Amino acid sequence: MTIEQTRVAIVGAGPAGLVLSHLLEQAGIESIVLDRRSREEIEGTIRAGILEQGAVDLLATIGDTSRVHTSGDRHDGIELHFGAADEAFERHRIDFPALTGRSVWLYPQHEALIDLIAARLAAGQDLRFGTTVERVWGVDSDRPRIAGTTAEGAPFEIEAEFVVGADGSRSAIRPAVTGGSHAGGYFREYPFAWFGILCEAPRSSAELIYSNSPDGFALISQRSETVQRMYFQCDPEADPEALSEAEIWDTLQARTPGTELREGRIFQRDVLRFRSFVSHELRRGRAALVGDAAHTVPPTGAKGMNLAIGDVLLLGVALKELLLHGSERGLDAYPEAASQRIWKAQHFSWWMTSMLHLAPGTSDFDRLRQLGELRTVVESEAGRTYLAEAYTGWPYRTTLSDVSRNDEDSRDMS
Amino acid sequence: MTIEQTRVAIVGAGPAGLVLSHLLEQAGIESIVLDRRSREEIEGTIRAGILEQGAVDLLATIGDTSRVHTSGDRHDGIELHFGAADEAFERHRIDFPALTGRSVWLYPQHEALIDLIAARLAAGQDLRFGTTVERVWGVDSDRPRIAGTTAEGAPFEIEAEFVVGADGSRSAIRPAVTGGSHAGGYFREYPFAWFGILCEAPRSSAELIYSNSPDGFALISQRSETVQRMYFQCDPEADPEALSEAEIWDTLQARTPGTELREGRIFQRDVLRFRSFVSHELRRGRAALVGDAAHTVPPTGAKGMNLAIGDVLLLGVALKELLLHGSERGLDAYPEAASQRIWKAQHFSWWMTSMLHLAPGTSDFDRLRQLGELRTVVESEAGRTYLAEAYTGWPYRTTLSDVSRNDEDSRDMS
Repeated sequence: MTIEQTRVAIVGAGPAGLVLSHLLEQAGIESIVLDRRSREEIEGTIRAGILEQGAVDLLATIGDTSRVHTSGDRHDGIELHFGAADEAFERHRIDFPALTGRSVWLYPQHEALIDLIAARLAAGQDLRFGTTVERVWGVDSDRPRIAGTTAEGAPFEIEAEFVVGADGSRSAIRPAVTGGSHAGGYFREYPFAWFGILCEAPRSSAELIYSNSPDGFALISQRSETVQRMYFQCDPEADPEALSEAEIWDTLQARTPGTELREGRIFQRDVLRFRSFVSHELRRGRAALVGDAAHTVPPTGAKGMNLAIGDVLLLGVALKELLLHGSERGLDAYPEAASQRIWKAQHFSWWMTSMLHLAPGTSDFDRLRQLGELRTVVESEAGRTYLAEAYTGWPYRTTLSDVSRNDEDSRDMS
Repeated sequence: MTIEQTRVAIVGAGPAGLVLSHLLEQAGIESIVLDRRSREEIEGTIRAGILEQGAVDLLATIGDTSRVHTSGDRHDGIELHFGAADEAFERHRIDFPALTGRSVWLYPQHEALIDLIAARLAAGQDLRFGTTVERVWGVDSDRPRIAGTTAEGAPFEIEAEFVVGADGSRSAIRPAVTGGSHAGGYFREYPFAWFGILCEAPRSSAELIYSNSPDGFALISQRSETVQRMYFQCDPEADPEALSEAEIWDTLQARTPGTELREGRIFQRDVLRFRSFVSHELRRGRAALVGDAAHTVPPTGAKGMNLAIGDVLLLGVALKELLLHGSERGLDAYPEAASQRIWKAQHFSWWMTSMLHLAPGTSDFDRLRQLGELRTVVESEAGRTYLAEAYTGWPYRTTLSDVSRNDEDSRDMS
């Protein structure tokens, strides 16, 4: 078996890995991208997706496709509905462009992946599907290696100058970075899950409705003109097959007073558990983690894909500094720079989750406090802006000075 | 024993009761104010106090004193300090006038009470100290009554057209309003308390410092040029006498990295427990609750006295409508109108508390999320404004249309 050579070995052909390979190519840095899944599996796994304005702007520059603009739906706001009882139910809109000058785009992740894979292949990217990484070693040296099995079942070994773990929440690279157990991270669990459906129906609402009803949370979202995605808060142990279609519609409708849901055949149903995770370490020597390998967020904040792009924009800068200029300055700064956005996004995801869901056993005090919070947010332009800034995304950092910026300047503003 | 007659019987000569008697007199409505404490006890019980701009503006119109302006200290901001470690400790200022056009005033509650009592007595108010109310009845009729014992130990009985419970968290009037137990409310407790000191020292800081340190919360506040008030988070069961002065200063200094505390003799120390409470009912028939009788908040949000004034501004309008025009419209709207501000203030107090304290057993995830939240707030003008709006106070509602405003208009903004 020959040992192949490349500059950067990227494990994982999700949004993080594919965008990073593009950023590296722009700087003339060769990479190999490997993924244990087939191209069909990656492109065919239906995933949700809300893209921040900054993420859309970046994706539109990769390859010659503008599908995100033509097939994606720009959303200029979300609705927040809440109330202690149906007769006191309030419906408010958060107007993103008016508050922040930005929007978000509803563009499912698998659609973004179809675009990215096509663009990377058209650019000549070495992109290997069905390739499983089984070993990672030497990350403390200048020549880390990965080894595993190709799609044809043959062993392979690659020596690189850097290894990137972009291989999702069950990352095979993470243990080499954390130096410990497979998990090795900060965790939070939630005492509820989402019961999600896909149905054949017209839109019930032009924009996403986040509804905190007396019966619990529901989210009305969209997929296309004819297919809709909706969710309601449920027990994590709920059996997705236990409810009839009529019971599902009754539950959704009861949690969205004042909104007439347009029903249709339900052709997919699932229970999504909530989980917050951040890896204890984001970099060790010549290896780093990005995207879901580094962190996962509950879906309420719609931050998953956007946070992955934030990571690789920073890591791309750091790798250029390492591989073109021989300096580890960017890499050394990467964990702290990435962590700042990660923990803001973890907070936002927790905040949206805790503000909108009824946790089992919530006291009447905390229920009324939650409604007091929602009213404080919607009644204040500053409150709406604070939420809209986070939802539409804080500005990405894309330069070396951004990455290695320490916060000394802002540390003492008093 | 003769049964005395008055239009409004106000039980409690705290800020709520005294301000209400002033508002009623302005409308030509006679009232009697009773308090079980002596004047000396009321004026001599040292209390903290942060007044919102709106509360200061109101107090300055009562009587001919402008002591709140000459003896109070205007504070144009607070400082938020936080960090995961001393070397990464950040210090930020929230600039109230720049963000909201408003300020707050540091003016201890007992000073405000000295002013209010003098002003009410000068105006001829029937104000009875040392008078204990033992019975309340007839609140469902047009002529509710209260009875009890005077300062001289004689029985008294008063028949009024309305009874107001402004008698603090152990209100004697509350059971007549809630119709149930003495408590009858929504509760929340916190797993920590504040260890507070008064010391003879110059100011360590011109403005309040709220510090979320790796060792827990501390608050550096001021009382005068020569006397300072400081607090640090402690166990609710802590014994205030168990620490030496040196240990207290070490604890405070360890929790305020980057601030040089100016030490001095500690002449008072106490442990303040945290408690959130809102009465289940704020009005029944011809009786209503205001101030601490209606709700208590943890001290972190500095909302206590301000919320009391918000209540009596609303109730004053409702009582004028009842007693001058014979309409219960304002009274009927009082509970919902007051509740909106109460629950916003309860949320703000909970938010400041939970964002700034380390609860026992907090996970590393939640600790880092908390720092992510603080960074999100201070890095965003909208975040800083959202906090400053709440700290300096939402606008008071002072007209009948304010009180009886239902939120139909804002209920559907989408």
